[in-house]
Amino acid sequence: MDALVQAMLNSDRRALARLLTAVENKREGADTALAALFPRTGRAWIIGVTGAPGTGKSSLVNALAKTFRAAGKTVGIVAVDPTSPFSGGAIMGDRIRMRDLAGDRGVFIRSMATRGSLGGLARATRDVIRVLDAAGFEIIFVETVGAGQSEVDIARAAQTTIVVEAPGLGDDVQAIKAGILEIADVLVVNKADRPGADNTARALKAMLEMGHPTARADLIAHHGRLLPVENLAGPTDAPLWIPPVVSTIAPENSGIGDLVSALEAHRRYLIETQALDGLERQHIEIELHDRLQAELMARLLKAVSGEVFADVIHRIQTRELAPQSAVDMILSLHNQSC
Amino acid sequence: MDALVQAMLNSDRRALARLLTAVENKREGADTALAALFPRTGRAWIIGVTGAPGTGKSSLVNALAKTFRAAGKTVGIVAVDPTSPFSGGAIMGDRIRMRDLAGDRGVFIRSMATRGSLGGLARATRDVIRVLDAAGFEIIFVETVGAGQSEVDIARAAQTTIVVEAPGLGDDVQAIKAGILEIADVLVVNKADRPGADNTARALKAMLEMGHPTARADLIAHHGRLLPVENLAGPTDAPLWIPPVVSTIAPENSGIGDLVSALEAHRRYLIETQALDGLERQHIEIELHDRLQAELMARLLKAVSGEVFADVIHRIQTRELAPQSAVDMILSLHNQSC
Repeated sequence: MDALVQAMLNSDRRALARLLTAVENKREGADTALAALFPRTGRAWIIGVTGAPGTGKSSLVNALAKTFRAAGKTVGIVAVDPTSPFSGGAIMGDRIRMRDLAGDRGVFIRSMATRGSLGGLARATRDVIRVLDAAGFEIIFVETVGAGQSEVDIARAAQTTIVVEAPGLGDDVQAIKAGILEIADVLVVNKADRPGADNTARALKAMLEMGHPTARADLIAHHGRLLPVENLAGPTDAPLWIPPVVSTIAPENSGIGDLVSALEAHRRYLIETQALDGLERQHIEIELHDRLQAELMARLLKAVSGEVFADVIHRIQTRELAPQSAVDMILSLHNQSC
Repeated sequence: MDALVQAMLNSDRRALARLLTAVENKREGADTALAALFPRTGRAWIIGVTGAPGTGKSSLVNALAKTFRAAGKTVGIVAVDPTSPFSGGAIMGDRIRMRDLAGDRGVFIRSMATRGSLGGLARATRDVIRVLDAAGFEIIFVETVGAGQSEVDIARAAQTTIVVEAPGLGDDVQAIKAGILEIADVLVVNKADRPGADNTARALKAMLEMGHPTARADLIAHHGRLLPVENLAGPTDAPLWIPPVVSTIAPENSGIGDLVSALEAHRRYLIETQALDGLERQHIEIELHDRLQAELMARLLKAVSGEVFADVIHRIQTRELAPQSAVDMILSLHNQSC
């Protein structure tokens, strides 16, 4: 694993790919490698891109990647697909990218698909981003299909989040999903040559005006915190960021320049108001919370036998024991052994 | 709180409403009340109803409730809305219900809206269902807007899950959201008088045929378990349940009889194959996991001071300390104090 890390740091792309696989699958030594790479992280600009299927997220990321490459920036792309065994993966979008970006050593693309827990996917995504960050990629796109919790998880990992809509997907004012506007730093109406694009843009702007500007902060503030929320609030005199709405037609490169400007404006906002600092602190706090929780559970599961759990579950099912009392019982057993 | 529980058990509806509020807001004594009511639970048939906004879930639940009432069953309705401050709540659906079901003492409707964490909402929903179960309601509908994690949380609480689709919402084969088919026991194409309804039904049936029948089991199996997955697998010779697709027009009561038959067939399947027993055991296991995790974290946060957390977060942010090492450090501090 040590040799892999060294080769990766010497820009060996095969070593990078193998390290990412090791990290994604939590192979032995992956955690040590991540800890060793950690001091080299924190330099990349992480941009989350989310939206419903059919909004053209992949083409948009592709167009953005090409524009940033033309400006001399290196780009990593992490395409996360919390795949349904019914609906298949994000293979289509990857093919488009392969054609356009293949052979460019300044771009690295990684697809992550999963069955299994959302929590595990969020953890793996965070680790993959971190490796790409340590490898020196300057801009990292994290693309996910918009499905509730995964959007919130992006907001937890990204510094700038793009929410992509498209006309004609039934995304009228009523149908825009709860929770999606709160995480948007920049809203994109892609496929803007389709009928209804102006209506979609107008509806988004109207909803932004109706919404409370602190909604995003509220959303994140209640989740996985270790410190009282007040401790982490930014300076109250900082100006608020109002998400702009940008119309694009990704395959024609239309509107991509405006979108890049909007992204750069958000980046400047984060740096000038020191919000970037607060955001990073918040991400670290949430990560620490999740890691502590996972480790506490792992230790408990190691210390308490499967027979005890099976017996307790049986007694709850027969209504002998309330779940509340079961928790106290198991934890007092556990404490005796510690 | 004791008096409230007694009044509730004597069919006092105002006491029931107040107890639900206490439970939802985790007021003092709520946990004790829940523990006292626990032996009276486990009798209701819990039916989850989920789908995108605009599919007519509320009208459908309304029509189902009237049909079950006509057959002499008492009905509880829990309408859960993980509300966006932008999109507002499910007030519309409730108004329709109030008009149709008002004054019927065999029906109790409870709306739950929230800002804040999804985990907290899942906990509160479980507790509210339990109180209605203890109060003697025979069928409890749990209605949520379809948004990723909340659907999985329904699958965790319900015995039978209805997924509602409607034509014309852009829900073509590609757009049907990842993860939604896995949790469906019965699929409904509502608003079946709209153009495209036959296509929607056909697309759903085609996707069901393509999909692997154990997908649902996989989805749930990886989440929040205490025991090895094998321990909880049902008898392997039990026939699989193939979700039927039912077309309805809820306001005209069209197809509701077929839907009730499909629901009852699923209920019989659960009982005859003993899958109901395994499902309940699984729900209990997941609840116990979540409660243990929450309690372990609560104890840790009580034992370790905010200053320690703030200092550790700072040292991670400056890259002095890797998150992996921080966890070990904090837990060894914690263990010294136990």
